[in-house]
Amino acid sequence: MGHIVLAGPTNDISSLISQEGSRFWLGKDEVTDFDLCFLRSFGPGSTEQVTRRISLMEHMETAGIKLINSTYPFRRSRDKYSTQYTLHAAGIPIPKTFTTESLARAYEMTEEMIPVIYKPILSSMGRGSMKFDDTDLAFNAYKTLDRLYQPLIIQGYIKNPGRDIRVFIIGDECVGAVYKYIPEGHWKSNVAQGGKMVEEEMKPEIIELGFRAARAMGLDYCGVDILESPNGPVVLEVNAAPGWQGLKEATEKEIAKLIVEYGVSQVE
Amino acid sequence: MGHIVLAGPTNDISSLISQEGSRFWLGKDEVTDFDLCFLRSFGPGSTEQVTRRISLMEHMETAGIKLINSTYPFRRSRDKYSTQYTLHAAGIPIPKTFTTESLARAYEMTEEMIPVIYKPILSSMGRGSMKFDDTDLAFNAYKTLDRLYQPLIIQGYIKNPGRDIRVFIIGDECVGAVYKYIPEGHWKSNVAQGGKMVEEEMKPEIIELGFRAARAMGLDYCGVDILESPNGPVVLEVNAAPGWQGLKEATEKEIAKLIVEYGVSQVE
Amino acid sequence: MGHIVLAGPTNDISSLISQEGSRFWLGKDEVTDFDLCFLRSFGPGSTEQVTRRISLMEHMETAGIKLINSTYPFRRSRDKYSTQYTLHAAGIPIPKTFTTESLARAYEMTEEMIPVIYKPILSSMGRGSMKFDDTDLAFNAYKTLDRLYQPLIIQGYIKNPGRDIRVFIIGDECVGAVYKYIPEGHWKSNVAQGGKMVEEEMKPEIIELGFRAARAMGLDYCGVDILESPNGPVVLEVNAAPGWQGLKEATEKEIAKLIVEYGVSQVE
Amino acid sequence: MGHIVLAGPTNDISSLISQEGSRFWLGKDEVTDFDLCFLRSFGPGSTEQVTRRISLMEHMETAGIKLINSTYPFRRSRDKYSTQYTLHAAGIPIPKTFTTESLARAYEMTEEMIPVIYKPILSSMGRGSMKFDDTDLAFNAYKTLDRLYQPLIIQGYIKNPGRDIRVFIIGDECVGAVYKYIPEGHWKSNVAQGGKMVEEEMKPEIIELGFRAARAMGLDYCGVDILESPNGPVVLEVNAAPGWQGLKEATEKEIAKLIVEYGVSQVE
Repeated sequence: MGHIVLAGPTNDISSLISQEGSRFWLGKDEVTDFDLCFLRSFGPGSTEQVTRRISLMEHMETAGIKLINSTYPFRRSRDKYSTQYTLHAAGIPIPKTFTTESLARAYEMTEEMIPVIYKPILSSMGRGSMKFDDTDLAFNAYKTLDRLYQPLIIQGYIKNPGRDIRVFIIGDECVGAVYKYIPEGHWKSNVAQGGKMVEEEMKPEIIELGFRAARAMGLDYCGVDILESPNGPVVLEVNAAPGWQGLKEATEKEIAKLIVEYGVSQVE
Repeated sequence: MGHIVLAGPTNDISSLISQEGSRFWLGKDEVTDFDLCFLRSFGPGSTEQVTRRISLMEHMETAGIKLINSTYPFRRSRDKYSTQYTLHAAGIPIPKTFTTESLARAYEMTEEMIPVIYKPILSSMGRGSMKFDDTDLAFNAYKTLDRLYQPLIIQGYIKNPGRDIRVFIIGDECVGAVYKYIPEGHWKSNVAQGGKMVEEEMKPEIIELGFRAARAMGLDYCGVDILESPNGPVVLEVNAAPGWQGLKEATEKEIAKLIVEYGVSQVE
Repeated sequence: MGHIVLAGPTNDISSLISQEGSRFWLGKDEVTDFDLCFLRSFGPGSTEQVTRRISLMEHMETAGIKLINSTYPFRRSRDKYSTQYTLHAAGIPIPKTFTTESLARAYEMTEEMIPVIYKPILSSMGRGSMKFDDTDLAFNAYKTLDRLYQPLIIQGYIKNPGRDIRVFIIGDECVGAVYKYIPEGHWKSNVAQGGKMVEEEMKPEIIELGFRAARAMGLDYCGVDILESPNGPVVLEVNAAPGWQGLKEATEKEIAKLIVEYGVSQVE
Repeated sequence: MGHIVLAGPTNDISSLISQEGSRFWLGKDEVTDFDLCFLRSFGPGSTEQVTRRISLMEHMETAGIKLINSTYPFRRSRDKYSTQYTLHAAGIPIPKTFTTESLARAYEMTEEMIPVIYKPILSSMGRGSMKFDDTDLAFNAYKTLDRLYQPLIIQGYIKNPGRDIRVFIIGDECVGAVYKYIPEGHWKSNVAQGGKMVEEEMKPEIIELGFRAARAMGLDYCGVDILESPNGPVVLEVNAAPGWQGLKEATEKEIAKLIVEYGVSQVE
C-alpha cells in the first residue's frame, strides 16, 4: 500500500480553525488528513513569521498529525541555551555555560573562564561560533555582537584530543557513531568544510550518552556531538535536523530510508 | 517573617550552568535561591534576545524557582495564534480563525469570511488589530503587512452587543467580572483609550468560561476577554499580564495584593 | 566594435581602495575599467548591507564609471518622501503630503485631509499603499504600522478620471506616453495586476511635465506617473527602474534597446 | 537680540508639503521659520524611520533652513565606507580598505592584508571594530557577522606610535589638536574608556590634514582622527557629531559655545 507524499516549506502551510475543527493546506492542497509530517526547518523569516510556523506545527500536532521531530523538542534543539540546561537537568555533562546581555558581566566571567567559545543562541553545527584566548579580544567581539542585538552565550573551551564524535540516533537504534578529525591548527571539526567522518570502534558509554541526550531532548532522531574531555565525554550539541551525507559515506547506511521507516512505524 | 524582593527586566538576568548546578543573577545580585518570580514581560529585543529570555525563564523553572505565570503558558498567551488553537482544542468557542503567509489564500478566505479582523500574531489587548468590511481594502492592507514580513491571522468578525466582558481569574478565584462598553461608531472596547469598566451581574456560564480558558492555557492568573455573540459567549483573548487599574476601580479590590498572596501561597 | 557585458547583483560587487587607486570586482571578475553600469536595484538586505551597496555605487561613480541611473537620483526615487519635496522644490504639482512618526499628529492631519492615501516610504509602483475614507480606520492602520516601526507618509487623495498616465523618458526623448485605465471599484491602476496600457494622443503639457520631473530628479531615464486632477496634472511617482513590458506592447518600441543605446552614447 | 531655541529628537519632527509651500513642526511647535538647526543624530530606528529623518533634514535644507552639519555630509560621515572613498578621492591618505559581502573574497583579501581591522559600516569612534592577527580567527568572525547580515569593511592595520591624534575643526579654525595615548596592550585609544587627551605641539601638516579632511567631507565642524604611520599621517575617521568633553578639558576652550557662534554667524 502506498503513501501520498507532499513536500514544501512551512511558510506555504495555511490553517483554519472553525466549529468543524482544524484544517491545513500546503499551498492549495489540503493536508488535514495526513498522518505524518517530517519537520526539517522553520525556514528564514521575521520573528512573527517564524512564530506562526512554530505555532502551526504545534497546531498540527494538537490536531492529530504526528510530527517527526516533534515541534517543541525541535525548537529547543535550535536554541543552544535551552539545549544546554535541558541536558544539564538530565545529568548529562556539558561545558560550563554562561549567558548574559550585560557586557560588564560577560567581561568578568570571560576573565574567569578564558579560553572561551562564543556561541550564537540560534544556530546549528557550530556555525557562527568564535574561540577566544584573550579577554580583551573577546570583549571587543562582545561589543560588536551587543550592537547587533545578540545575547552572549559563553562556554568554557574544552581541549579536544584532535577529534570529536557524532552519534546518530533514530528511535531506539544508534545507526552510526563516527569520529570527526579536527584539522591541524583549527579548534573544531567541520565536515562541511572538508573534514572527514571515520567509523571506528566506539566505547559503549559514548553510545549510551547519545541515547541519553536524545531522550532528554525528546527527539525521535538526532545527531549528538560529543567531545572526549580529560574528565570524560561531554555533549556539545544535539542536532534535530542533522545532515547525513558524511555519515552515509562512512557507514554505507541509507539514513534517509531509516528515518522514513521509523516515522511510518510510529503512525501505523 | 519578611521576604527579600528584587525587581528588574529579564534582560538584566544572567545565568551560569556548571558542575555545581545552575546559578542566576539579576544585575549583580545573585537570585539562585529565590523561591518565586513574577513574570510580566520578556521586554523588547531582537529574536535572539527574546529567545534567550524565554529560555532563561524556563531554565529558572527547571532549577526550582516558581514562575507566575509559568514561561510556556505566558509565551503562548503572547502568541495569538497559539492561544486560539489551544482554546479550540479544549472545546472553548473562539472566532473562526485563518492563518497564512500567502496573499492569494488570504484573499480567497477573506472573500468568504468578510467582515474580518486582522490580528497581529504578537500583541496584547487587541493592539494593532484592524477591521475590514471590504475584501479589496483588506487585500491592500495584507500586501502592506506582507511587505513588512508579517504573517496574516484573519478572524471572522462577530457582531457585539455594544459591550464585551473581562473576567479576571487568580488561581481558583474569579476576582472580577466586568462589562467594557464599546463607544458609538467603534468596533472594539478600549479601556486604555477611555472606555469604562462596569461591574454588573454576570451569568455563571460566563465566569465558568473564564475558568476554563485560564486552565486550558495553564495560567495561574489572567484576564479573559469574552464576547456575547448571538450563538453564545466566545473567548477573544487571554491576557497573561493583564493590567488592573480599570478593574481595581470597578471592583474596589486590591488586585496586585491578591496576585502576590496567591504567588506566595504557591511556594510556602 | 563590441562590448564586454557582465550582469550581477550589487551584493556581488567588492571594492578595494589603496594607494594605487580604487578597484572593483563583480564576483571574481575585475570590472575596474568598465565604462558603464546600469543600476536597476540595490537588492534586498539589512540597513548595513544596503548602505554598503549605495556607497559602492557612489564609489564607482567617483572612480569614473558612468552609472545609469546615477546613484543619488536612483536612491532618491526609491524614497517617496524625498521624491515629493524634490518635485515640489522644482515647482512641479504633487498631492498634499504629510510625514510624521507621531500617531497624534497623524490623526489630526488625517481628520483634516480625509480621504487620504498612506504610502510606504520605500516602495515602487504604489505597492503597499492604502486608501482611507474614514479617520478611525486610518488611525487603526497607523497604529499597526507604527508598531512595525514604519513612519507615516500621508497624501491627500485626488479623485482620478478613471485613468492615470505613464510617461517614459530616456534622456531628451519621450519614448512613450500611455493611459492606464483604473478598473471599476478600484482606486489605482495596476498594470502588474492585469490593468492595460493604451497609447492615445496626449496633451503636450503632460509630456512636458514628464520631462520636468525627470530633470528635477536628475534621472537619465524614468517612468513618470501623472494624474489628471480637476486642477491640472499632478505627478504621483517617478520610477527610476521602471518595467517596460506593458509599454512595449502599447508602443511596439524596443525600450530596453533604447536605454542601452542611450547609455552607450553617454560614454563614447 | 535673542533667539528662540527648541531642542528635540529628529523623530519628533513632522512636515507638510502643500501649495503654500513646506511647513515643519517639532512636536506641536511650528519651526518653519527657524533659521538654523544643529543636527547631532538621526536617532535609533528602522531603515524606514531613519530614511524619513534623513529626507526630512534634506527637506528642511531645501526649504531654506541652515543645517549644521549639513545632512548629506553628516550622513556620509556616519558611513565609514563612504568616508574612506571620499577622503581617498580628495587625495587624503587612508588605510588600505576592502569591502565585500562575500566570505570567500574576504578570506582571500584578509590573507593578503593580515593584520586587519574589521569596521562596522555604521558606527562612530571605532565602536564595534575588531583587530585580527590571524586569518582563521578573522574568518570565524566574518561568518558570524555575515549571519547577522553585516557587510565586511576590512582595513589594513597600521602600527601606531603609542598614540593617535584628534584635530577639531570649526569652519576655518582649528580649535584643538590633541594626542590620545593608547593604553599598554591595546590597539586603539579610547577616551570614552578612560584614555586621556593631551594638548601638545603639533606639526602644521597634521593641522592642514584636518582641514583637508573636513573640506573633502563638506562638514562645517568635525573631529578628525589621524594616525602617524611610518609613511606619514593617515586619516582614520571623521566624526560629524564629535563629543568635546575630553577636548574641553585638554584645551580649556568652550567648544559648544564656539560651535553655536559659528552656526549663528552662518545665518546672519
